[in-house]
Amino acid sequence: MKLLVVGSIALDSVETPFGSTSDALGGSAIFFGYAAAFFHPVQVVGVIGDDFPKEELDRMAARGIDMTGVEHAAGESFRWKGKYSYDLQNRETLDTRLGVFADFDPKLPDAYRQAKLVFLGNIDPRLQLRVLDQVDKPDFVACDTMNYWIEGQPDTLMQLLKRIDVLMVNDAEARQLSGDWNIYRAARWIRERGPKMVIIKQGEYGAVLIDDSGIFYVPAFPLEDVYDPTGAGDAFAGGFMGHLARTGDLSQANLRRAMVFGSTTGSFCVERFSVQRFQEVGVAEITARARSFGDLVHFDTDGF
Amino acid sequence: MKLLVVGSIALDSVETPFGSTSDALGGSAIFFGYAAAFFHPVQVVGVIGDDFPKEELDRMAARGIDMTGVEHAAGESFRWKGKYSYDLQNRETLDTRLGVFADFDPKLPDAYRQAKLVFLGNIDPRLQLRVLDQVDKPDFVACDTMNYWIEGQPDTLMQLLKRIDVLMVNDAEARQLSGDWNIYRAARWIRERGPKMVIIKQGEYGAVLIDDSGIFYVPAFPLEDVYDPTGAGDAFAGGFMGHLARTGDLSQANLRRAMVFGSTTGSFCVERFSVQRFQEVGVAEITARARSFGDLVHFDTDGF
Repeated sequence: MKLLVVGSIALDSVETPFGSTSDALGGSAIFFGYAAAFFHPVQVVGVIGDDFPKEELDRMAARGIDMTGVEHAAGESFRWKGKYSYDLQNRETLDTRLGVFADFDPKLPDAYRQAKLVFLGNIDPRLQLRVLDQVDKPDFVACDTMNYWIEGQPDTLMQLLKRIDVLMVNDAEARQLSGDWNIYRAARWIRERGPKMVIIKQGEYGAVLIDDSGIFYVPAFPLEDVYDPTGAGDAFAGGFMGHLARTGDLSQANLRRAMVFGSTTGSFCVERFSVQRFQEVGVAEITARARSFGDLVHFDTDGF
Repeated sequence: MKLLVVGSIALDSVETPFGSTSDALGGSAIFFGYAAAFFHPVQVVGVIGDDFPKEELDRMAARGIDMTGVEHAAGESFRWKGKYSYDLQNRETLDTRLGVFADFDPKLPDAYRQAKLVFLGNIDPRLQLRVLDQVDKPDFVACDTMNYWIEGQPDTLMQLLKRIDVLMVNDAEARQLSGDWNIYRAARWIRERGPKMVIIKQGEYGAVLIDDSGIFYVPAFPLEDVYDPTGAGDAFAGGFMGHLARTGDLSQANLRRAMVFGSTTGSFCVERFSVQRFQEVGVAEITARARSFGDLVHFDTDGF
């Protein structure tokens, strides 16, 4: 099933207690694309400036990350600069330069319009809607958002909710959107407004899928060393959607497997800066880690 | 296998956004005892004042919570008064009156000394050690502690660690004790100092068991309504140890089942104030909820 993502394409400068990067590959579409491409080719919608390193485009093309739908605009690429606290629990944005992203108006090439699986990365919900309008007949649409749009574009977000299958947000976003502290009540509130499913990402704890059939919990993979949490949520989405695209199976059982692959790619993402870890590992390592989630949660009910 | 707990026996006054209690049954030994007694009789070590309601002792005896080892001292029972924030994430202690607990020096009746499973609830580690000294030959000792003792009695805690099988703490406590933010490295640090296992309780997210054989993750049971988190950790410990006592099986597979029962009793605890929920439900409801954890985490690896 054809898989499409729209999101930011950024050059990130990130400082964590373990080191720093400067103008490294980042943005929701990039983290998503790298993670998803282990499973299935991805068509990327976004915009880059004329300072964007061409060799990165070639590397991505070689991995099945199709950047032909990415607009090349005159000016600077989107840049984000942030610093994490000693415990990686909080981050401070030091600088955001929108650059060419400021005037971004997504236009899908014909080859992209047949996408069946769509991930609307965390950008202005008006742009997310505009992308959705250009896809002929998607089977499954997932969407991320953040506090900035929940506050600034609540009406657009409500329109968007009616047209998506799954909202993927973190717990703070689910709480803010619904006005309810309890994440299960928050998920109910969201599902009453459109999406059949809600996935709530809980960072180091894992993620929860809530739909009509019930609740599925996948833990985060236990890591003794986390370098940089940037992009983990998008990498989760990439593994999740990539697995669905590869299998073409939207059954409940397969959504659960997709959650496990999402948690897997999310965990690899945070082991290095930027997309470095994705450039080191292969499908075999991804699959091996995904399998190991079984042991992490397995128990038998003998004598229950 | 005989099961013993030492801990506080308190009269709690708790305020949450959903209501309040006054002088309700509380304390680590009580929450533990109520949870464990669904599985196996429990011998309780502690102290109460002459204001402690006698009818509560009778109710506990009827449930298999053996209070014959509890000292009756002249004076007031231990009292704790606390208030939770709107989201139940933080609590403020408004008042602590130690009462008879101030001079508590645990003395085990002969009938208690053969205990094979021991839970050292969160009290002064010097008292925890004194209890342990009076148990003939325990097979399995679990221990809780808190920031107050980590700061005030670090040397005693280190002695204690050498004599226990599992330390059960929350993530903040594991971090403080080890000086390491990462909970898996923190667990390694703790295990290098004595206990074969560490259980890290993560509140609304669940709990993790870490031992030589690996890592086991049990989520918290998804609840749309949480009334009062007080005692959840002790109720977790009660379900965990109660299941081990009932089965007499300390295998890895059974420790995992015990984690599931712990998460189950922890979840019932928070559905009402004090031990009210434990007085409403029966073994069948406990078991049914424990079974449902399977579906909460189950996935198959077809096509992985």
